[in-house]
Amino acid sequence: MSLNFSKLGLRQKESDIARLMTVALQRPDLLSLAAGFTDNQTLPLAELTAMAVELEKEGDRSVLQYGANQGNPRLRQLMSERLQRQDSAMETYTVDRSFVTNGSQQALYLAVQSLCDAGDIVLVEQPTYFVFLEMLRGLGVEAISMPTTSSGEIDTDGLERLLDEFSSSGDIDRLKAVYMISYYANPSGRSVSRASKSAVLGLLQRYDGRIALLEDAAYRELYYSEPHDSESAIALLDECGAVPVLYSTTLTKPFATGLKVGFGYCTHDDWLARMMAIKGQQDFGTANYNQALLAKSLETGLFDRHLAVLRSSYQGKMQALSSRLETSLVDMGWSWSRPDGGLYLWLTAPEGVQTGFDSAFHESAIEAGVMYVPGELCHAEGKPRNRVRLSFGVLGTSELREAACRFCAAAQRFTPTRIS
Amino acid sequence: MSLNFSKLGLRQKESDIARLMTVALQRPDLLSLAAGFTDNQTLPLAELTAMAVELEKEGDRSVLQYGANQGNPRLRQLMSERLQRQDSAMETYTVDRSFVTNGSQQALYLAVQSLCDAGDIVLVEQPTYFVFLEMLRGLGVEAISMPTTSSGEIDTDGLERLLDEFSSSGDIDRLKAVYMISYYANPSGRSVSRASKSAVLGLLQRYDGRIALLEDAAYRELYYSEPHDSESAIALLDECGAVPVLYSTTLTKPFATGLKVGFGYCTHDDWLARMMAIKGQQDFGTANYNQALLAKSLETGLFDRHLAVLRSSYQGKMQALSSRLETSLVDMGWSWSRPDGGLYLWLTAPEGVQTGFDSAFHESAIEAGVMYVPGELCHAEGKPRNRVRLSFGVLGTSELREAACRFCAAAQRFTPTRIS
Repeated sequence: MSLNFSKLGLRQKESDIARLMTVALQRPDLLSLAAGFTDNQTLPLAELTAMAVELEKEGDRSVLQYGANQGNPRLRQLMSERLQRQDSAMETYTVDRSFVTNGSQQALYLAVQSLCDAGDIVLVEQPTYFVFLEMLRGLGVEAISMPTTSSGEIDTDGLERLLDEFSSSGDIDRLKAVYMISYYANPSGRSVSRASKSAVLGLLQRYDGRIALLEDAAYRELYYSEPHDSESAIALLDECGAVPVLYSTTLTKPFATGLKVGFGYCTHDDWLARMMAIKGQQDFGTANYNQALLAKSLETGLFDRHLAVLRSSYQGKMQALSSRLETSLVDMGWSWSRPDGGLYLWLTAPEGVQTGFDSAFHESAIEAGVMYVPGELCHAEGKPRNRVRLSFGVLGTSELREAACRFCAAAQRFTPTRIS
Repeated sequence: MSLNFSKLGLRQKESDIARLMTVALQRPDLLSLAAGFTDNQTLPLAELTAMAVELEKEGDRSVLQYGANQGNPRLRQLMSERLQRQDSAMETYTVDRSFVTNGSQQALYLAVQSLCDAGDIVLVEQPTYFVFLEMLRGLGVEAISMPTTSSGEIDTDGLERLLDEFSSSGDIDRLKAVYMISYYANPSGRSVSRASKSAVLGLLQRYDGRIALLEDAAYRELYYSEPHDSESAIALLDECGAVPVLYSTTLTKPFATGLKVGFGYCTHDDWLARMMAIKGQQDFGTANYNQALLAKSLETGLFDRHLAVLRSSYQGKMQALSSRLETSLVDMGWSWSRPDGGLYLWLTAPEGVQTGFDSAFHESAIEAGVMYVPGELCHAEGKPRNRVRLSFGVLGTSELREAACRFCAAAQRFTPTRIS
């Protein structure tokens, strides 16, 4: 049989995640520091069931009916108000500009589908979310890294030069968006400072709204102690002018991932309408029941109570993993920073140690019984090759310590013997 | 602001459904025979909540965890076995070829995305599902109607001639798939006979597997008395050779639409892999909790008990609507057949009565307080213009009678006075 696939179809290949999952299935003895899942222990099964029972008591069967393509109005209102509070914004965030998606992933997909043809360009951070890079590859869109300072911030002077080069070469017409993970990023754990976000918006506004900003705030609520001290790009638009912004986040990563509900807010009405038209064709609306469960969880305070539990849990797990790694890896020449939120440690191995899927180091880690995400997957250009993403999302504290031991054992084999 | 949209983005416009919904919101006094929703009264809120409580008792929190991109293995197994039973098939239906989607809509979208570039062709029935036509327009794909016999079957001799013409003209290279709604179709209420399905497969197999069959079986389980007497195209492949088939259906239309879970089965492994890669980029898996609820509903028999309720309910509502219409419309020259399943009556108005959104008849119906779907939306070529889709899904029996009265009153104004 010889189906002739579309150009899009032809571009599809097994994803890096699928490859990781295949390894995980073949080797159930492995401890996974790879998956960016949340942990089963903290999933609020009893609490969510109580919400389901509450919905039944209220007796509104329409929660099991089809909903609107753009999402449940009550949930959109609650989330728009929540975003406005987080941004300490004076102006009202318009419910009309908000929408609900199948996880935040779909919002990003709709954004790229509506903006980019194959051959177009999206600028990304280095490192960036590797599933987003896969999506761009799948859609035939070129990802190019923005310049970065030695401290890991976006180098706005360098970005300005890059944009100028694009203008000179004509590539600027292919540049459709900048993708920025602005809070406790996957994988770096970093947040974008207010100054940096403002500077990027300031650069983009020179292009008359032709270049959009995709702000991915999936981990914004998963801070450990205090929220990161910067409002969203939406709140900065007043001073930064007319840049179309899509802000995307998820209601379920910081609650119950199995519900798969994302939330988006788009400042550009025509763009929003086009994304919603595509969503209408893809699924005609996210599962209405899940949205009702989440609206109820927000209204009753369950969502926030559970968030407090998660923040403390993830902070504890981050500390357990990092502490155990520090006892060995630092002396071996590895380095990383402890994040203030999120699910990831982003490690730099000593120069010369490569960590990719086909590397000796990766083989050694699998032999030692631990999985991680090779950092090169998180870079548009596939390098540097000596980075590692470790997630402390899935495993419990004692398993994390064991996984850290195994990781250190693997690292030990790649450490030059020191002669003292 | 002047975003430069992608070609896909530029093709998006307000959908016909959105237009219908806008009217519905502006005029809450209207009775809707338009929406293909199920009715709130029959939605199993208490029963589904019992499933949620059951899941809590079992205590497996992983139902709230991320699931696999291709879907929950247990649900896929249950549905593959169910499909095999429905097809009375001897050969085992492979779970590996099954997958779960966000409603059956997403399966169709993935199929078209992976097969068709803008400018390609998909053959459809006349009439066909109007949201599918919108999807094709959104993706830039040309829909062309297959020839139809006077009794409404696919005219396979005519189809053979059409395929021959495509071969002569070279258009055959753009023809990627045939879309067939084979059970109690939306909007015609018709089912495709075994002979007709076999004949279409027989024609397609001449093209060495280059033309796929998309079989949409969304309403298969919503028969009133007996299942339609034809197996799926999958079961017919043994005798009809190597045609790639995607069979799509929904678990939630015949149960609780607000859960939005579809099921697909694809006989072509490479095609399936490409669709799954795209799904991985769109959402990385349908909500896991919903899949657990549905697997539990299937296992406990709730799903089938509820189906029995729905079948009886929809049959009763079909009879109520059709009977009331028959008392007036037949004498006015309207015609239709009572379906054996599904949610729709498909009416033919007297010649010369146009029913489109901008027609005097449509205006008259809205004035009389009733909404319907203009039949021309359901035809790739936008005609005939004198058809009407009425859905008895949403309204209760007495409301249906009132809606029928209003519809008849509108029709009355477009009936030539007879001189006896």
